[in-house]
Amino acid sequence: MQERTEIEKLGEFGLINHLTENFETFNASTILSIGDDAAVIDHYGKQTVVTTDLLVEGVHFDLMYTPLKHLGFKSVIVNLSDIYAMNAQPTQITMSLAFSNRFSLEALEEFYLGVQIACEQYGVDLIGGDTSTSQKGLVISVTALGEVVPDKFVKRSTAESGDLICVSGDLGAAFLGLTLMEREKKIFLENPQVQPTLENEDYIVGRLLKPAARKDIIDYLATQEIVPTAMMDISDGLSSDILHICKQSNLGCRIYEDKIPLNEATKAAAFKFGLDPTVCALNGGEDYELLFTMKQADYDKITLQEDISVIGYMCDQEEGTKIITKGNNVFDINAQGWNAFSK
Amino acid sequence: MQERTEIEKLGEFGLINHLTENFETFNASTILSIGDDAAVIDHYGKQTVVTTDLLVEGVHFDLMYTPLKHLGFKSVIVNLSDIYAMNAQPTQITMSLAFSNRFSLEALEEFYLGVQIACEQYGVDLIGGDTSTSQKGLVISVTALGEVVPDKFVKRSTAESGDLICVSGDLGAAFLGLTLMEREKKIFLENPQVQPTLENEDYIVGRLLKPAARKDIIDYLATQEIVPTAMMDISDGLSSDILHICKQSNLGCRIYEDKIPLNEATKAAAFKFGLDPTVCALNGGEDYELLFTMKQADYDKITLQEDISVIGYMCDQEEGTKIITKGNNVFDINAQGWNAFSK
Repeated sequence: MQERTEIEKLGEFGLINHLTENFETFNASTILSIGDDAAVIDHYGKQTVVTTDLLVEGVHFDLMYTPLKHLGFKSVIVNLSDIYAMNAQPTQITMSLAFSNRFSLEALEEFYLGVQIACEQYGVDLIGGDTSTSQKGLVISVTALGEVVPDKFVKRSTAESGDLICVSGDLGAAFLGLTLMEREKKIFLENPQVQPTLENEDYIVGRLLKPAARKDIIDYLATQEIVPTAMMDISDGLSSDILHICKQSNLGCRIYEDKIPLNEATKAAAFKFGLDPTVCALNGGEDYELLFTMKQADYDKITLQEDISVIGYMCDQEEGTKIITKGNNVFDINAQGWNAFSK
Repeated sequence: MQERTEIEKLGEFGLINHLTENFETFNASTILSIGDDAAVIDHYGKQTVVTTDLLVEGVHFDLMYTPLKHLGFKSVIVNLSDIYAMNAQPTQITMSLAFSNRFSLEALEEFYLGVQIACEQYGVDLIGGDTSTSQKGLVISVTALGEVVPDKFVKRSTAESGDLICVSGDLGAAFLGLTLMEREKKIFLENPQVQPTLENEDYIVGRLLKPAARKDIIDYLATQEIVPTAMMDISDGLSSDILHICKQSNLGCRIYEDKIPLNEATKAAAFKFGLDPTVCALNGGEDYELLFTMKQADYDKITLQEDISVIGYMCDQEEGTKIITKGNNVFDINAQGWNAFSK
């Protein structure tokens, strides 16, 4: 970026107006948007679904290898993913930012461009937010609202014994993208002359920096008249997240290692870093794929959908939460997902 | 506080569960609360109102003189105030916190106790949130939802020429409370042996640390069948906020200095600090009183309500935005409200 405009030139109200003036409204339910004490939504005969996520610099992202446009995009996506994981459709978001004075207006414009792309791609309206200076770093707080046909939302606590466990897409790539970026950062810090080697790593880097929220899977399940018995999105890693469904449903599970979907690029990257791709899928996180359970009777409806994998089944709580490896060994599943408080 | 429990002992999910386990649900509209990807709300035949506010340490509050319980309380109140300012009733909030590792579990418990008191006092449900570590300081992000009878919400842009301008309660006290606390902090930093002298300053300190959201005024207006023509809450100061209504309604205004409501304690504190109490009321902010316009025909309905003051009237845009002083001088109203970007 060439220019640098200081934020104080605009003031708080001018800043919000400036950053959001190109945002369109897509939903008839958005009655009143930015510019008043609050926004107003009419979800007619539907129920409103609400989720919120914080993204903190140095904890959830590193600006050294996260372009601001991607960060704006991703901060919306991670919230939409939670809405889809309720079997709902996202309709509105609020976006709040606390940033230190090292951020110029041009930097914030880049961020909001990413927000706008996500909003347009998923037909979601930005209806409010707040901005402030911070003492250090960037803190992003997004709240997303969605709508669902009354009582058609899907919780984590309603899986039943015998249900099939399914995941969308493939797992582990975002973690390997992160591993790659951290390695390149380390090399760069040791020797700033070395150019990063990201050739052939488009897939894993893209999964880290440009995640998708699986609207297509929710829409597919609806066309097939499949209502998952339980569902959540995979943000902390398959291990941690399947354990949430087991715990909240008072059940156990069996997962088959050879059924866990892995992209070829993920396997290649794991090999290069000397990591086990299954461990990356189990503990990596940030995949934003959907993890759901469904009745066995629905199995025939998904056999032609290549983007849904059946990876195991739910069983009684006394049978434990176990993974069966390719070598037919049986291990307990441990939550080693990414934990914001572990350091 | 005597004990100090490190947060990592609980983990993120344990932390949220621990901090929110005593929270009750007050609203039938809260279908699903904390513990899933998202919460679910059914506002039946009503419209949903949404607002969000960030509170950042060092910008919006100073922990040196803000007890965490008061901070938790206030961070809810400032959002509820925005919901009431739409002529709506708050029903749910989400609460997200980013905090550095200097915060113990006991400190967070104090904060959530304040959140809980506010929720109970106003019958609002905590339905979600997120917690994270931060690089420095405490960042609080609250989103509040409310409900309103379809199309009965009140915007800032719908005042009409000739409407009366009203404010609830009294103004300027929170700013003087802040001035006092900043002075005591300075004295303390220069000489830690000196005890703070806060006698007889309960009112102004209380207005800073324990603000009220004016549910009572919204309820009163409803019983009197008064629908304000425009409304907002006073967070940045009367000057800045009346200019929002004027600008968004394409109108001018006349405010009478002698009609601006001031508490005796506010006048006394202003005198002590050598400040003009009117200037404190105009530019101080953080009063969280309601500023609204109404038809002249409704005047008789509020004459017995001592907590509503008529301070002027709306006029055509060409007539400008002016204040008439006690000495009958006429000045332009300038927005000198608190600005998060001014430093």
